[in-house]
Amino acid sequence: MGSPYPDAMPESVQPQVAIGDDEIFDAHVGGKLAVALSAPLDTQRALSIAYTPGVAQVSRAIAADRTLAARYTWSNRLVAVVSDGSAVLGLGDIGPEASLPVMEGKCALFQAYGGLNAIPIVLDTKDPDEIVETLVRLRPTFGAVNLEDIAAPRCFEIERRVIEALDCPVMHDDQHGTAIVVLAAMMGASKLLGRDMSSLRAVVSGAGAAGVACTNLLLTMGLSDITVLDSRGILHTGRDDMNGVKVDLARRTNPDGLTGGLIEALEGADVFLGLSGGVVPEELIATMAPGGIVFALSNPDPEIHPEVAAKYAAVVATGRSDYPNQINNVLAFPGVFRGALDAGARRITEKMMVAAAEAIFSVVSDDLAVDRIVPSPLDARVGEAVAAAVAIAADTSV
Amino acid sequence: MGSPYPDAMPESVQPQVAIGDDEIFDAHVGGKLAVALSAPLDTQRALSIAYTPGVAQVSRAIAADRTLAARYTWSNRLVAVVSDGSAVLGLGDIGPEASLPVMEGKCALFQAYGGLNAIPIVLDTKDPDEIVETLVRLRPTFGAVNLEDIAAPRCFEIERRVIEALDCPVMHDDQHGTAIVVLAAMMGASKLLGRDMSSLRAVVSGAGAAGVACTNLLLTMGLSDITVLDSRGILHTGRDDMNGVKVDLARRTNPDGLTGGLIEALEGADVFLGLSGGVVPEELIATMAPGGIVFALSNPDPEIHPEVAAKYAAVVATGRSDYPNQINNVLAFPGVFRGALDAGARRITEKMMVAAAEAIFSVVSDDLAVDRIVPSPLDARVGEAVAAAVAIAADTSV
Repeated sequence: MGSPYPDAMPESVQPQVAIGDDEIFDAHVGGKLAVALSAPLDTQRALSIAYTPGVAQVSRAIAADRTLAARYTWSNRLVAVVSDGSAVLGLGDIGPEASLPVMEGKCALFQAYGGLNAIPIVLDTKDPDEIVETLVRLRPTFGAVNLEDIAAPRCFEIERRVIEALDCPVMHDDQHGTAIVVLAAMMGASKLLGRDMSSLRAVVSGAGAAGVACTNLLLTMGLSDITVLDSRGILHTGRDDMNGVKVDLARRTNPDGLTGGLIEALEGADVFLGLSGGVVPEELIATMAPGGIVFALSNPDPEIHPEVAAKYAAVVATGRSDYPNQINNVLAFPGVFRGALDAGARRITEKMMVAAAEAIFSVVSDDLAVDRIVPSPLDARVGEAVAAAVAIAADTSV
Repeated sequence: MGSPYPDAMPESVQPQVAIGDDEIFDAHVGGKLAVALSAPLDTQRALSIAYTPGVAQVSRAIAADRTLAARYTWSNRLVAVVSDGSAVLGLGDIGPEASLPVMEGKCALFQAYGGLNAIPIVLDTKDPDEIVETLVRLRPTFGAVNLEDIAAPRCFEIERRVIEALDCPVMHDDQHGTAIVVLAAMMGASKLLGRDMSSLRAVVSGAGAAGVACTNLLLTMGLSDITVLDSRGILHTGRDDMNGVKVDLARRTNPDGLTGGLIEALEGADVFLGLSGGVVPEELIATMAPGGIVFALSNPDPEIHPEVAAKYAAVVATGRSDYPNQINNVLAFPGVFRGALDAGARRITEKMMVAAAEAIFSVVSDDLAVDRIVPSPLDARVGEAVAAAVAIAADTSV
């Protein structure tokens, strides 16, 4: 097949001019967030309203009816972006301090693309008991929790337990934010190629946070033939070196009982979904079924160069901003939390995640192209569309 | 004596027009804080700098040298305003949710008067072990801790232990913020009256957070004759119903070994410092030495009406904004934390507190009047003066 990239690519998809270190570091001096006042406090009257004595009336009202805190404080719509710094970007376990620039960036994106206030909460502990306990103690401080960059498999237990412990929306974005955007991109690619998504044979490389969540959501959407690989090869029920999450996944995937590695998995596959940080040689991509889909999402280095993948696949996406079809979580998380909070939902359900993916897809569905299977991360319509769809799909009874 | 209030009071000290409930509640809808971005995120280039891939370089640098977090994140200058909601204003133990409007107001004041970012952290626990433990786990999130509205005597243990556990500035504002402003006001009143502060016989009504801290700071400043009272009367070494903090205070105060209550304490006293929430009858104030000082700081209802106190005392102050000489902690805490953070201090020492009081005093010292022994809380010069003085007084070796 020919390259999916037009001969004259629009400026936005040209490889970017490299940004110098100085410019990046300068932009981070002092951090990327500030606390702003909703009204100035420069008159005695303003002080008397916002602080003593006026504030006492508001506190007294909330003391009498705790639910009023949702109306008269910022907490109810405040997202805590929580990390222990154990799996930050592709950098690994770099600790809570070093994770902070990422968490600040995330909070800035919540504001810019979801209109939500968000604050970084970075924890000097990796113990699941302590993380859950800490968030329970902090509960009155915020209205939702975005778990971020917590290593697998701890992230699965921590997310499950935080959801159980807190009566507010909780989502581990590395899992479900990624899964939502991957699903949206898969909807776009399938429609563009005229394929029935459920008929696609998919290979998922990576059984960490994103790999597990993407596989689960694709299974829900009817993809029955998914093969998942970790660093030791294909997940299958005969292996005895897997954690509980992988054992469970092996039972629900790999219907042909494949064993081995990428060679065995990729031959004849329609979809390659890379979430591994590894490398896939060109000759293996060449063994996939013709006209397929390659999402090489490792960042900053995709599992295979998108231009090489495009020699074989009909649709290619990466996590990079300098190639078309960027799979970027910012398409999902601001709107997902916004919609959940707008609806007063206590849980972010799979139904809400699917609705989010459909909303992302809807923004480009009438205008699909080989270099446009998902909207641009900068597209302001996405956050609104996702929030509205998620709010409608919300089930406030759970 | 005549009233200290001029016949024609300036507009700022006239009793305020009452502010209606509707206006107060409306002003609190959605809370009083917002998270703002230091730079817009509406271009691909901005995203690539603030978030992936650019942010990875900053995270990597901090991973290699953790001290760089102070430069490249907001955390180092972020004040956590921490409360368990157990002693909120005069409302008592109303819980963390109901304390939030106050904590938000405090954070807004940190921004407006200290130029510092601050976030409310309200805790669903009153257990000192759990509070200390939680703040230790949150340590990489912030750069300083303002403890707020935590009930005595737990506040003393919690402050001591949090200071020990964290390598950053920590201050319980109800204790030391109040003490700093009271000391500044005492400097102003003493100078105005031509009295040597150390010669004053003082009565402190209230042995909670503020009473203990004010007494300690006044002792440091050379006031040797201070009598402290709690709700059961004068603290003296013969009592067997006192907590450890009061036992300690009884040993260091009440040199004449007084017993009894306000009647016995106030007779012939030069200073009444009310921090109790109680009421002092006019006939007791009348027994004080002539030309004295009454600081009736309970809020919203002073221990004695300031106009009644002014029949006997030469200088009167309250915590209210609608009378002259408002003793308001906002004169201290923004500048104290700003100065400590500017200096890179790990501890807020007594020397820094005295420097803060002197700086507040310095703003009005050339312009003292019976209705101006402290600056207005709105005086923008105060925060700057306090920050500068505290930074100079800081000892970065402790």
